[in-house]
Amino acid sequence: MAETINKRLEDLREVMRREHLAACIFPSTDPHQGEYIPDHWKGREFISGFNGSSGTAVVTLQSAALWTDSRYFIAAEEQLKGTEFQLMKLKIEGTPTIPEWIGKECGAGAEVAVDGMVNSAYSVKELIADLRKQGGITLRTNLDPLAQIWQNRPPIPDHPVEIYPLKYAGEAAHDKITRIRLALRKLHADGMLMSALDDIAWTLNLRGTDVHCNPVFVSYLLISSKDVTLFINKEKLSPEVFAYLKAEGVGVDAYENVKKGLKDYFEYNILLDPDEVNYTLYEVVRRQESGVRSKVEIVEEESPVKRMKTVKNETEIACFRNAMLKDGIAMVKFLKWLDLWKEDSSAAEPLTEISIDRKLTALRAEQPLYRDISFDTIAGYGEHAAIVHYEATPETDIPLQPKGLLLLDSGAQYLDGTTDITRTIALGPLTDEEKKIYTLVLKGHIQIELCKFPSGSSGTQIDILARKDMWREGLNYLHGTGHGVGTYLNVHEGPHQFRMEWKPAPLVAGMTITDEPGIYLPGRCGARTENTLLIVPYRETEFGRFLQFEPLTLCPIDKTPIVLEMMAPEEIAWLNDYHQLVFDRLSPHLDDDEKAWLQEACAKL
Amino acid sequence: MAETINKRLEDLREVMRREHLAACIFPSTDPHQGEYIPDHWKGREFISGFNGSSGTAVVTLQSAALWTDSRYFIAAEEQLKGTEFQLMKLKIEGTPTIPEWIGKECGAGAEVAVDGMVNSAYSVKELIADLRKQGGITLRTNLDPLAQIWQNRPPIPDHPVEIYPLKYAGEAAHDKITRIRLALRKLHADGMLMSALDDIAWTLNLRGTDVHCNPVFVSYLLISSKDVTLFINKEKLSPEVFAYLKAEGVGVDAYENVKKGLKDYFEYNILLDPDEVNYTLYEVVRRQESGVRSKVEIVEEESPVKRMKTVKNETEIACFRNAMLKDGIAMVKFLKWLDLWKEDSSAAEPLTEISIDRKLTALRAEQPLYRDISFDTIAGYGEHAAIVHYEATPETDIPLQPKGLLLLDSGAQYLDGTTDITRTIALGPLTDEEKKIYTLVLKGHIQIELCKFPSGSSGTQIDILARKDMWREGLNYLHGTGHGVGTYLNVHEGPHQFRMEWKPAPLVAGMTITDEPGIYLPGRCGARTENTLLIVPYRETEFGRFLQFEPLTLCPIDKTPIVLEMMAPEEIAWLNDYHQLVFDRLSPHLDDDEKAWLQEACAKL
Repeated sequence: MAETINKRLEDLREVMRREHLAACIFPSTDPHQGEYIPDHWKGREFISGFNGSSGTAVVTLQSAALWTDSRYFIAAEEQLKGTEFQLMKLKIEGTPTIPEWIGKECGAGAEVAVDGMVNSAYSVKELIADLRKQGGITLRTNLDPLAQIWQNRPPIPDHPVEIYPLKYAGEAAHDKITRIRLALRKLHADGMLMSALDDIAWTLNLRGTDVHCNPVFVSYLLISSKDVTLFINKEKLSPEVFAYLKAEGVGVDAYENVKKGLKDYFEYNILLDPDEVNYTLYEVVRRQESGVRSKVEIVEEESPVKRMKTVKNETEIACFRNAMLKDGIAMVKFLKWLDLWKEDSSAAEPLTEISIDRKLTALRAEQPLYRDISFDTIAGYGEHAAIVHYEATPETDIPLQPKGLLLLDSGAQYLDGTTDITRTIALGPLTDEEKKIYTLVLKGHIQIELCKFPSGSSGTQIDILARKDMWREGLNYLHGTGHGVGTYLNVHEGPHQFRMEWKPAPLVAGMTITDEPGIYLPGRCGARTENTLLIVPYRETEFGRFLQFEPLTLCPIDKTPIVLEMMAPEEIAWLNDYHQLVFDRLSPHLDDDEKAWLQEACAKL
Repeated sequence: MAETINKRLEDLREVMRREHLAACIFPSTDPHQGEYIPDHWKGREFISGFNGSSGTAVVTLQSAALWTDSRYFIAAEEQLKGTEFQLMKLKIEGTPTIPEWIGKECGAGAEVAVDGMVNSAYSVKELIADLRKQGGITLRTNLDPLAQIWQNRPPIPDHPVEIYPLKYAGEAAHDKITRIRLALRKLHADGMLMSALDDIAWTLNLRGTDVHCNPVFVSYLLISSKDVTLFINKEKLSPEVFAYLKAEGVGVDAYENVKKGLKDYFEYNILLDPDEVNYTLYEVVRRQESGVRSKVEIVEEESPVKRMKTVKNETEIACFRNAMLKDGIAMVKFLKWLDLWKEDSSAAEPLTEISIDRKLTALRAEQPLYRDISFDTIAGYGEHAAIVHYEATPETDIPLQPKGLLLLDSGAQYLDGTTDITRTIALGPLTDEEKKIYTLVLKGHIQIELCKFPSGSSGTQIDILARKDMWREGLNYLHGTGHGVGTYLNVHEGPHQFRMEWKPAPLVAGMTITDEPGIYLPGRCGARTENTLLIVPYRETEFGRFLQFEPLTLCPIDKTPIVLEMMAPEEIAWLNDYHQLVFDRLSPHLDDDEKAWLQEACAKL
């Protein structure tokens, strides 16, 4: 692999010399700013070989570097071995920013390229400003430097689109569009360009299979005060979907025509979310804004669709509960099966990280309306549990042993809902360190579950509840504590999060959010415990409306690693209540053996 | 008073008609964006009669309204009675923003005035944008509408300036200036304009008495890569101060010459903190920026002086501890005296909110290096304790009775440090509600004191620890939980705070911060408990440096209102440890009677 990468760097540098470029930047984004990138746009992986979900590669004429965050430090180190790429660890003291590094490597006055189509308007504008500070380095955005060197580049995906029935969506597309237009009015905008694929799928009540784990389809949606136009490869639409779109008042145009659509947009102003819309399309409108003949004005605001989508309606909530019930049943069957193996692992079939993932996925697939996994399973055993976004491959896969902790973070796409759950499971005897981190993580998880808060609080305020007990021990984790979850949509849904960084999105009733603190001790062990929660009303007083969390996830939490003396009485009480809920909800759907196993797993502490 | 106000409105409207203005806006700020406003700039109070520290008055040709926050709802209601002014409650659902209200009252195309000198560049730019959205209302900023109608307007204060000795400041002015220039370099700026009076006082190691409670002096400071110029009324400077400034490399020019100073600034760029510098001065530079002959560029960043000033050096910390010791002695003498009164209040002299304030101030004034109070004492008894920023006046003053809670928030300016402390004191029997809110507030206070956190965390993350137990009871408070405290400087020092709103300033070792949760039940009672804390190292692990809080304030916390069953074991342990510390530190400085009283007050729970 290292050889292939170095050959590609050689090819790239030939292009760079021809174009007089001092450096090329390859982000991990695509024209739709999605989390999972269709292969066609995996330019950063093509050029660097690093396949993590987040990272930026920069290539100069004489050097190459890759920036990624703590989740991927270990994986990136592995994958970059033997290549020219130097690993740059984000958020670690001493790591230069990308513009700083380019400034040092390339010197003042250099020209650097990034493909404006695969970067958000905001990030490119920031990059331009930051590069300018490095002695006036300029940025070229109208070139895809890989176009000339990427042999056998995968095409843009073109899978068929399907209608998402109203009995799951709970609100018709034309009603959603009416609400969006109302929200746009409040932001003083006549229309908007939507490029986030999950926002488009949610708005139109359509789903697809263009993107790994995300049931979305590649397209743009342009809303004006009169028209709605879906820019999509028309071959993806059956006559039924065509008729449906027409009935909902949505016109269709070719995917490539989105630029033309923006040029033909003749209203006073248009909302472009600079974090969502890519720089090239943003610039198409901006040039009109400054043009003489047109007077369209850009309203730069967060897309109102993001927040609308995160607040689930009653139908969606009922469907969510149903999907979670099925997911809990599959998880219980899996955990019982794993317990059997633990009882006599030397005699039983050998298990590995990959084989248990296969088993769990098979059990989920037996459940009604199962469609897919919702993200790549993280099954990390022993020291692999300390690799935050570990994905077992045939090369890294290791056999389970009857000791230590197994971290299992997984989820499914059911037609009626998306699930996301992490359990850390003791496979046998544990060290004191393993017990301690497991208990601290569980305490953090429960402190979030117990939180009551004023409607409109932000996830940044609440995040510390999961960390405060760890911090007293000098422990921490560098990822967020939770994210929204879509309705048969993306498992990561914004803009609200629990996070140390500022996330202004207010938490309101009807939102889903995960609660997933962890502790990772590199080379030793890791633990994470995650439920998906629903935000529901708590009480109303003279100080306003207060909200609380209801766990949607229904699955026992392993009690064997708990250090009881570390638990507060309210934390023990919560765990007992939660286990009672799990037993009450799941047991009617289980056979006698499973029921007996669950009763034991849910017994009071 | 109401008559006077209505007459002033009449005069103002005459000016408005002459100038073709549909509305005038009067903020509570001054050219230096200070918290305490010299009388000369109290335009909002002049026009509305409302004297709270925060509020904005707007007058149209036919209506008038005043916006203020929850701290002042009750006080403002009182003070606006009988005037045309309508009270607009900030952060309460349904309250229009100022631009929205002006839009409705004045209609599209109107012209509105605000004095650009007494508003920050940021707030005026935001106002311009928001008014534009209201059907294109425009803003005029080059007019002080009061200039023509304010008879006997108080002059700009001109008290003498004094040198703040190095034995208290710990770092010479020229060394601070060197550090500031270094920080400016990192922000790619050649110089800066300082207009915050406490920043100027800190930088130059000078103090003054121009502003109520704040030992500062009215001036501007312009730093370039070569020169430092203090713009100040020269009559305020003694020959000794003149000589000192010269020795520190600081030139002097007249206060009015600051605009000329900015026009004569001939470097490539200048840092202007848009939250600090007023709009008029900002525009002086901006017009040069867009001018043909000059190329000065504005660097819009937070002034680096703000953060530098908040991190205390070792001398300042030692002085702080000394000031807190003296303040604790005064508080103990006061509390013992109040206890004596409680023992037989019917026979003793009658006490009122004002008289106890007088007593406390007298006890503080006996301490060495005492200079002033650090803010207007809040002595609120009974239902007055529910008025967050209550200041007793002869009209509102009420006698204390041997029951209920007295909230006492006060502080002093000593030459070696500034103090800020709140104690809520049971004067006799309490209701269950009083005990409950007192205990919840104390729990919140202690949870902050107990917090350990990664260096660089923000106050927004930590704030919830003071609130989480209240929130479970549907209770809350709408002010921040804490703020920085200056070194013989302003009692409110930014930019770091504990607050529900986003405060990005990282908390680092050496900062002071108050910890002052409260609960206020209007018409019933209120409680707040406040210590000033110092941020100090906790431990360093593989997850980085962790910090903790050390209480600087040394004064017992009333134990009689505590509902013991509501307290967690760690909270009781903290209180016992804190009381031990208070006793150990203060008792050597007390007489036998006082010592005996303190021993009792500090006895273990």
